[in-house]
Amino acid sequence: MSDAPSAPDTRTAVIAAALDLFAEHGFESTSVEQIAQAAGVSRSTFFRQFGGKDDVVFADHELLLERARAWLATGHDDPWEAVCQASLDVYRHFAADPDLARRRYAVVRGAPALRDREIVTVFRYERLFDEYLRGALPGLDPVDAVGFSAAVTAVHNHVLRRLLRGPKRVPATMLRQALDGVRRRYGVLADDAPTGDDVVVAAFPRRMPLAEVTRRLRDELEG
Amino acid sequence: MSDAPSAPDTRTAVIAAALDLFAEHGFESTSVEQIAQAAGVSRSTFFRQFGGKDDVVFADHELLLERARAWLATGHDDPWEAVCQASLDVYRHFAADPDLARRRYAVVRGAPALRDREIVTVFRYERLFDEYLRGALPGLDPVDAVGFSAAVTAVHNHVLRRLLRGPKRVPATMLRQALDGVRRRYGVLADDAPTGDDVVVAAFPRRMPLAEVTRRLRDELEG
Repeated sequence: MSDAPSAPDTRTAVIAAALDLFAEHGFESTSVEQIAQAAGVSRSTFFRQFGGKDDVVFADHELLLERARAWLATGHDDPWEAVCQASLDVYRHFAADPDLARRRYAVVRGAPALRDREIVTVFRYERLFDEYLRGALPGLDPVDAVGFSAAVTAVHNHVLRRLLRGPKRVPATMLRQALDGVRRRYGVLADDAPTGDDVVVAAFPRRMPLAEVTRRLRDELEG
Repeated sequence: MSDAPSAPDTRTAVIAAALDLFAEHGFESTSVEQIAQAAGVSRSTFFRQFGGKDDVVFADHELLLERARAWLATGHDDPWEAVCQASLDVYRHFAADPDLARRRYAVVRGAPALRDREIVTVFRYERLFDEYLRGALPGLDPVDAVGFSAAVTAVHNHVLRRLLRGPKRVPATMLRQALDGVRRRYGVLADDAPTGDDVVVAAFPRRMPLAEVTRRLRDELEG
């Protein structure tokens, strides 16, 4: 394996060449031969690196999923934040080369089979987060693990779609804020506002919905 | 179209016959001819009712998605609760005949292509809820629409999976409670505890995370 021609840079070159061809001629109309020729690799190298034509489109996700899995496995004091960090890592990968990410997005949107596979791939992140949280937090209500993981994944995709639709830059801080919002909803965002040792006294009618009490407290304390 | 033989009861019979055959012989090994014969319909009736073999497995979801869309479109005072009602309606459909639902689950789990299509189908509910909320609540932060919709859908599937894995009954009240939990997280569950006109006075250190304040208030007020 050490002298295999599947160096990471070859892999990246094949992906870029394939996305260019897909974007120009359409996914269905592009052959593996054309991709291999454009990337300057042999057909057999292509098949050694990728299982098939559509695997090229999802190659990054496979690496990113693996990286997220490895990152989560290192152990974390705050598992909720570890999930958010994994989400941010994926986001930063695509945000680092928005043009390539947008070309990929256009290709995926143009082919129903790829769109479906994208949804299935996204679900793998959600399930990874869910399983990680349950393992890292024994006794956690599974409903909270699935709810948090789904919200993080959905919020991630929402912000990522804004980036992919372009043309504006959508910095990772936007995702960071949205993820903090999810953590706040699940009560796992430590309040990092500058605080003293003051005591707050709040008075409210007992019939006021607790959510409304919280909203007002938040405005008061964080606003 | 009025004299077409695609009456709803024929449709149901075809679905039940197909799931029986899939469960017994496997999805791949079952032909449309066998399904049609077992259900007592012609091959052409089968294809008029369903696009293909796998569409039989997802026929209920198509109807349920349509019903959810129609229900949401009727207009609701509380859009968050309307989404929960849509989720409960889907749940009750499968819970009404757990044996059939479990047979369907076994078939889906046994064929990777069906598993993927299930994930894609689930995502259609999530997107439906998301789009509905954004339409019903102009000015709503889309991050909250996607987060809430994803959490509801994920919690729904979690409870449904418990039902499908059997053998125990999992009543709809379990989903109801889990959905109320999501509503509470998003601050849209009106506090329905018996309340008077009392005023509550709460005192807490300013540095305490707001989520923790809320948690303690909840325990105090609802516990």
